[in-house]
Amino acid sequence: VFGPLMGAALRAGPPVDLRRLLAEAVQMGDECHNRNKAATSLFFREIAPRLVATGWPSDDVAAALRFIAGNDHFALNLSMAAAKLCLDAAADVPGSSLVTVMSRNGVEFGIRVAGTGDRWYTAPVGPAVGLFFPGYGPDDANPDMGDSAITETLGIGGFAMAASPSITTFVGGTPADALAASRSMRRITLAPHPAFPLPPLNFVGSPSGIDVLKVLDTGELPLINTGIAHRDAGVGQIGAGIVTAPPEVFLAAVHGLAAARGVET
Amino acid sequence: VFGPLMGAALRAGPPVDLRRLLAEAVQMGDECHNRNKAATSLFFREIAPRLVATGWPSDDVAAALRFIAGNDHFALNLSMAAAKLCLDAAADVPGSSLVTVMSRNGVEFGIRVAGTGDRWYTAPVGPAVGLFFPGYGPDDANPDMGDSAITETLGIGGFAMAASPSITTFVGGTPADALAASRSMRRITLAPHPAFPLPPLNFVGSPSGIDVLKVLDTGELPLINTGIAHRDAGVGQIGAGIVTAPPEVFLAAVHGLAAARGVET
Repeated sequence: VFGPLMGAALRAGPPVDLRRLLAEAVQMGDECHNRNKAATSLFFREIAPRLVATGWPSDDVAAALRFIAGNDHFALNLSMAAAKLCLDAAADVPGSSLVTVMSRNGVEFGIRVAGTGDRWYTAPVGPAVGLFFPGYGPDDANPDMGDSAITETLGIGGFAMAASPSITTFVGGTPADALAASRSMRRITLAPHPAFPLPPLNFVGSPSGIDVLKVLDTGELPLINTGIAHRDAGVGQIGAGIVTAPPEVFLAAVHGLAAARGVET
Repeated sequence: VFGPLMGAALRAGPPVDLRRLLAEAVQMGDECHNRNKAATSLFFREIAPRLVATGWPSDDVAAALRFIAGNDHFALNLSMAAAKLCLDAAADVPGSSLVTVMSRNGVEFGIRVAGTGDRWYTAPVGPAVGLFFPGYGPDDANPDMGDSAITETLGIGGFAMAASPSITTFVGGTPADALAASRSMRRITLAPHPAFPLPPLNFVGSPSGIDVLKVLDTGELPLINTGIAHRDAGVGQIGAGIVTAPPEVFLAAVHGLAAARGVET
């Protein structure tokens, strides 16, 4: 029921402006990776009247509304897709050292950079450090996995943590750590993102656009707010925490960029 | 349409837990007086499936949803009522110097204290200092008015500003001022409110329960986030800002409390 109904509601009105929606959510304490409560609520506000206006049976509409409202992480699906689209626009720029993808598959951590298209630079991925749901601990955790680090690649998620002191109750640390995270990510990014001002840092934009050269220059590694999955398939999420990208992938990317320009390294 | 439909939706389900809802909103950057976007969104999430489930015509339901979703201040009605109910529970406690009401009528500022029941202590009210909507300025403003200062009386609103750096774009000042506001209100209140932890202040509860004796001891005046009304009736809101309670009302209340105990002052 949900897919066709949502499709009908979306097609019946104007496009949903996800950049605006995510920007508003950052003003409301989301970092849009592991805290998505505001973005979910704002999307719900926008789509609910449209779901009702489809004229579908009210039981189906009520069930669809309850499905969205029952999951504070619903909007993660939207922020990931929006981030992916933003970054795809930056792919394949010759010579560019901008990171266009960060992802993990539970075994390896991989990045792509704009200057070498769809080539992956990979290294083993470590576990996240964080908080576990009751009954679980570090021994149950799989090494970090998932494609949601595309949010940090854009400059939200862990990079926007300053806006989200409440996320520290989910991933660990203190509000001061959250401020420090966004500040440290400034050192490895190209610019503050004008769409995502961080209120607690006087509305300076969230650090956006990881530059592999800056990562190597500073030794500062991209910081990712991540869910922790159980190492046995099917159990699902057992916690949340913070993981950093492995340094090897940035070094490999610089070698790849040099080779693409015919420079021996 | 709206009233009967909302009534039907509310009566068809369990009570809406406003304390929980406001507490969650404070985690999402609302201070629940002049910033109500999160509380409005959370209430919308809770009531929308229930509005649909009434089985009323979908046109009416969609119109009701759009009415709520179209006003980021909708939840102010809820926070004011909730605060009033909380504080009424503290009225009429013999000898208590707790402030149970702060209100303004555009001419005078009035308070009540728990130890003297429904007696008002009043003094002339000043204008708010803040930001004006385009085309308006201080000369257009009425002295402060409205009953919404009941939120500050509970310990949200201006007292919870630390949680709401974004409100400074509406009432003026900086995020640092917002932190300072909550910190200074600690000096004149009885305790941190356990229901309203302020994330940027390491989740310490919002300062709650103004004590007239502490106001006199410290000289610190309750700080109120307020809407600014035009001085001509019918024009409506022309800005928002910050106003402090006049000191005379607290001095008068102490005299009133003393008299109630038979002490000459």
